[in-house]
Amino acid sequence: MDGQPGTGRISFRNDYNDGAHPRVLQALVAANAERNAGYGLDRHSLRAAELIRGACGRPDAEVHLLAGGTQTNLVALSAFLRPHQAAIASVQGHIATHETGAIEATGHKVLTVPTADGKLSPGDIAPLLAAHDNEHMVQPRLVYISQSTELGTIYSRAELQALSDFCCIEGLLLFVDGARLGVALTAPGNDLSLADIAALSDACYIGGTKNGALLGEALAIFNPALKADVRYLVKQRGAMLAKGMVLGTQFEALFEDGLYFELAAHANAMAQRLREGLAAAGADFAVDSPTNQQFVVVSPTQLQALAQRYDFECWETRADDEVVIRFVTSWATTAAMVDALCDDYAALRGRS
Amino acid sequence: MDGQPGTGRISFRNDYNDGAHPRVLQALVAANAERNAGYGLDRHSLRAAELIRGACGRPDAEVHLLAGGTQTNLVALSAFLRPHQAAIASVQGHIATHETGAIEATGHKVLTVPTADGKLSPGDIAPLLAAHDNEHMVQPRLVYISQSTELGTIYSRAELQALSDFCCIEGLLLFVDGARLGVALTAPGNDLSLADIAALSDACYIGGTKNGALLGEALAIFNPALKADVRYLVKQRGAMLAKGMVLGTQFEALFEDGLYFELAAHANAMAQRLREGLAAAGADFAVDSPTNQQFVVVSPTQLQALAQRYDFECWETRADDEVVIRFVTSWATTAAMVDALCDDYAALRGRS
Amino acid sequence: MDGQPGTGRISFRNDYNDGAHPRVLQALVAANAERNAGYGLDRHSLRAAELIRGACGRPDAEVHLLAGGTQTNLVALSAFLRPHQAAIASVQGHIATHETGAIEATGHKVLTVPTADGKLSPGDIAPLLAAHDNEHMVQPRLVYISQSTELGTIYSRAELQALSDFCCIEGLLLFVDGARLGVALTAPGNDLSLADIAALSDACYIGGTKNGALLGEALAIFNPALKADVRYLVKQRGAMLAKGMVLGTQFEALFEDGLYFELAAHANAMAQRLREGLAAAGADFAVDSPTNQQFVVVSPTQLQALAQRYDFECWETRADDEVVIRFVTSWATTAAMVDALCDDYAALRGRS
Amino acid sequence: MDGQPGTGRISFRNDYNDGAHPRVLQALVAANAERNAGYGLDRHSLRAAELIRGACGRPDAEVHLLAGGTQTNLVALSAFLRPHQAAIASVQGHIATHETGAIEATGHKVLTVPTADGKLSPGDIAPLLAAHDNEHMVQPRLVYISQSTELGTIYSRAELQALSDFCCIEGLLLFVDGARLGVALTAPGNDLSLADIAALSDACYIGGTKNGALLGEALAIFNPALKADVRYLVKQRGAMLAKGMVLGTQFEALFEDGLYFELAAHANAMAQRLREGLAAAGADFAVDSPTNQQFVVVSPTQLQALAQRYDFECWETRADDEVVIRFVTSWATTAAMVDALCDDYAALRGRS
Repeated sequence: MDGQPGTGRISFRNDYNDGAHPRVLQALVAANAERNAGYGLDRHSLRAAELIRGACGRPDAEVHLLAGGTQTNLVALSAFLRPHQAAIASVQGHIATHETGAIEATGHKVLTVPTADGKLSPGDIAPLLAAHDNEHMVQPRLVYISQSTELGTIYSRAELQALSDFCCIEGLLLFVDGARLGVALTAPGNDLSLADIAALSDACYIGGTKNGALLGEALAIFNPALKADVRYLVKQRGAMLAKGMVLGTQFEALFEDGLYFELAAHANAMAQRLREGLAAAGADFAVDSPTNQQFVVVSPTQLQALAQRYDFECWETRADDEVVIRFVTSWATTAAMVDALCDDYAALRGRS
Repeated sequence: MDGQPGTGRISFRNDYNDGAHPRVLQALVAANAERNAGYGLDRHSLRAAELIRGACGRPDAEVHLLAGGTQTNLVALSAFLRPHQAAIASVQGHIATHETGAIEATGHKVLTVPTADGKLSPGDIAPLLAAHDNEHMVQPRLVYISQSTELGTIYSRAELQALSDFCCIEGLLLFVDGARLGVALTAPGNDLSLADIAALSDACYIGGTKNGALLGEALAIFNPALKADVRYLVKQRGAMLAKGMVLGTQFEALFEDGLYFELAAHANAMAQRLREGLAAAGADFAVDSPTNQQFVVVSPTQLQALAQRYDFECWETRADDEVVIRFVTSWATTAAMVDALCDDYAALRGRS
Repeated sequence: MDGQPGTGRISFRNDYNDGAHPRVLQALVAANAERNAGYGLDRHSLRAAELIRGACGRPDAEVHLLAGGTQTNLVALSAFLRPHQAAIASVQGHIATHETGAIEATGHKVLTVPTADGKLSPGDIAPLLAAHDNEHMVQPRLVYISQSTELGTIYSRAELQALSDFCCIEGLLLFVDGARLGVALTAPGNDLSLADIAALSDACYIGGTKNGALLGEALAIFNPALKADVRYLVKQRGAMLAKGMVLGTQFEALFEDGLYFELAAHANAMAQRLREGLAAAGADFAVDSPTNQQFVVVSPTQLQALAQRYDFECWETRADDEVVIRFVTSWATTAAMVDALCDDYAALRGRS
Repeated sequence: MDGQPGTGRISFRNDYNDGAHPRVLQALVAANAERNAGYGLDRHSLRAAELIRGACGRPDAEVHLLAGGTQTNLVALSAFLRPHQAAIASVQGHIATHETGAIEATGHKVLTVPTADGKLSPGDIAPLLAAHDNEHMVQPRLVYISQSTELGTIYSRAELQALSDFCCIEGLLLFVDGARLGVALTAPGNDLSLADIAALSDACYIGGTKNGALLGEALAIFNPALKADVRYLVKQRGAMLAKGMVLGTQFEALFEDGLYFELAAHANAMAQRLREGLAAAGADFAVDSPTNQQFVVVSPTQLQALAQRYDFECWETRADDEVVIRFVTSWATTAAMVDALCDDYAALRGRS
């Protein structure tokens, strides 16, 4: 999944291989000398929750700060579902593929729907609902989407509205995995705000780990029926940090003056620069992504050459031996890093 | 469980209300600018594991760095047990009382044994084994002990040896919860080393959160039969941090030059100073604890008076209206804090 | 738990070692040639449910016919509880001791309370509620009682009313394990009807296996909030028989003309005959049980002698070497069997 | 899933809507007056296990008699798998579709592979293994196949040998769901014996419910590494019947003189008669099934007409409005029933 960063290679491997943004780290360091209440009841966690409620336009939201994405998904889904109820996800959905069966380990099936671009639509889900109409099958109860998706794509406001309406009509909960919510909300062409996400979903989480924090995801619950006793679940799943201020300080820093969005916008800007640079050199993109993940189709020869100077993930090998590679940018990516890659790629294409 | 620290009051409430020790924090800050591999495969986590193997005298140990104690217990026990197998713990055992059923949530019963001092002996366990002799009852498989215990007491080498031998004979695994292992290993009168713990148990965890880290527990597995695929369990339970260096750097700092033991020894010294000071003023102790938790019996009047200047936990109210209160020291406790308490207590006793 | 019945020995071992009562068997045989709907939707299951609703005086009750007691308990409790919620039971409670952790395997802790006679009272439960007041501990949510209890004792109307009121006030569900409900409802001194049980509990099950059926327990749910989707849970736990008429026919036979109560009354009459016969010969009873389980204290010599002609269970060995043995009567026990035992026991006592 | 059988309609709906075969019922009735040991340790269960070991040619096999298929699957898989391990099944596999997430409820993911005919091959599984190569994904550990499959098809000896070899090489367990094993082993063209199944798999179950029993599936475990403590799991999952003789007597009757195979052969003969009769009238079959499930493509008009006299299941509606209907035969199906259907179908075709 993740190799040791190569010495000297420029890395586009992932958005969690750098530390925290300096201002986030500074907030943590500043609070280190304080004495704080434990278990997420410290002043920083409480203020962070307040800031997040504000950013969501939902003073009634319940916010829990957790350490990681898989943890957040399993706490939330096991809190929201009865034993016979299932989540619906894209076949690319993180809970369906890369969480080692974390949701199943809490007893729930994840039903999957094939999608071309990682996004679910009412039309994808309806047949599955029709097929699951009796007690011999699990009961679909929650739609899990990622924004941005595992392929870097984003839901438009119209798409999310349609999905939300559909869920409402069908009695389904809508949960948004926002491990990369920052880049979604600041992507070129995006027409959704955090308040829109809050208005159109039952719960979401706002990812910190991949957007400037050392660790941390903020679970925000909007549907009042889902709020009861969630702290019990947090504790039971081993997700309640004794020194909750570790998370609180970081989210304070991210949300007190818009840093969360600044960092994400930077990652997107770097991704667009990369996309434009590679496209100008003739690159073929496997996905039309406006966010910080870019999927480029390369030949084995190109792959070899690029891997000498750059670190990235091989996403998929195609039947024709072409390989889809993924470049990820983050708050720590610089224009110089991107330009080096684009130049080298252009040179490669010139040679080929 | 844990109130907001009172303004102005001196706190003996817990050992997780301060931040990290400055040297631990510095290690984290120093690494923040690096680019590291994810998911615990970074150089710091690898080196921390190596240092811990060294400290355990077990180059073959498998070490996993996790975020918190409940998380560590549930990952370990669910990795080690088959579905019908149960853990045996003291009735005071953390897994039995204060983890919101985390072990049961992974499917396993926790069988409890009453103990006066929080410590299990073969004689406590044997009757329970005798009673669980067929498939209509769970199969006892793992003995869970805490060192130091929830009451601050510690197992001697002879006691741990006897328990280890008993487990070996009876086909039981022995697991040591070391949330407060540091203070146990540096307590006055302690005759166990970390290498002894490693030699006498199948697995243990070495607590960082309560001994100078911001967060972090190091699970060390010694029994080869228990090592297979533990990283799968870590991931499945949501316990694998993307930026594992957050834990690695802290454990490096704690174990590269003995800081872990220094901090624990300091906490113990402060606890002994507190114990001696209060005892000199006539205090009655509910438990004979050599570590950083001290349990003092006070009258309601004394409780009221002490609570005005000091923050601590009320542990138990007795039938005669006396209250057992708990004072906890940590690496951050100062002699001045302790002396103030002792002086005030002595003055109180003079008044009464 | 259960030995091979000895050849020639008269058995008081258990109430599930005989087959079905002839009229119950006949009902099953009669329906065998029919073609029936599957999965508990057959005419017999539907009529049995109707008869049980009638017997409960609750036309609104939801009835599910299941195969065994452990299965029924785990289906019901996993349907009724959220993940962080626990059941409260007597330390003798079947779910706490003899179900191989079945409830824990669905994720829920069973909190236990010591009782002298197997019966829970509000006073037993209140301290446990007081101690479980925050999210670091499981949330007590359901009180599990057995009627009759594992010790043969029964709750009076006043006792059940008090417990029911307490549960109502404290927001607890009350669940009655009726594996031996028949003998409870027909015991000398009993002042509770099935309708009372229905009125005072949220759900109960009416045991068939130990009262004339080959297999079968009828789960009856009275609290409307607990009825949703229970058939999903029944299926998910492997408890939905394809040929549900196997259970339906038997419960029809038991409830269409009072056979259920007749059989239980007979078992009780035999138990009282046994109790009186042994008491007349000087026997000491460990429990004051009005139902079909009788616990007699015997010396090792008496034990040896009795075991040559009778089959029974050794319940407990006491410190003074005396042994508590259990005699169980059933619909199949005859007066001659009882009289033989009483005569032999009297002769033994004459000898000693 | 299953409607109330229509009055007067001839039923091909399923193979579990009839009672037991008279000889099976007779065995149960004959034993009803006996007194037997409980919990599956009675003489009948022990002898049935012995007979099944003989039929499997495996005196070392461990046999457990359980009540139903979902129950057997969940007991077996939860006994065989560690928490992070997954089963692999066809998308049509019963555990993947029609068991209400029973396997997931024990914590395990079911990975699915698309198949045209319900049968898995090494080539289907290999890519899935390749894709699941690290701890961020579940670990594939057990291949679940049905014989006959949910589509009525059967594995040939060569196919099963290839799958078995593949599993051996890849470190996978092979589990055979034999809910309809009888019809597979007696199908025209079948070249596998029960001993072959035993030799080529790690465990299987032999279905009784759909082949002459009232209820009952015999789980047979061949791999010694999988045998430990399975009775604990049976009890924990609520699958241990107090009166185990209910299952023992039926399997004795089925296996003491080959009745099991006779009944299955009859069901197959009726299915072939039906297949030939309908084919002669021009029917189009959706699946090429040699066993007791036959899938016929009909027009909406034909569906309407057939449904007036016959009871069957609508399996699938196709894009072109054609419907696939399923006819199932059993030990209770008569030639007259089949001939009536064939005649009516032929008449329908003549009309259209």
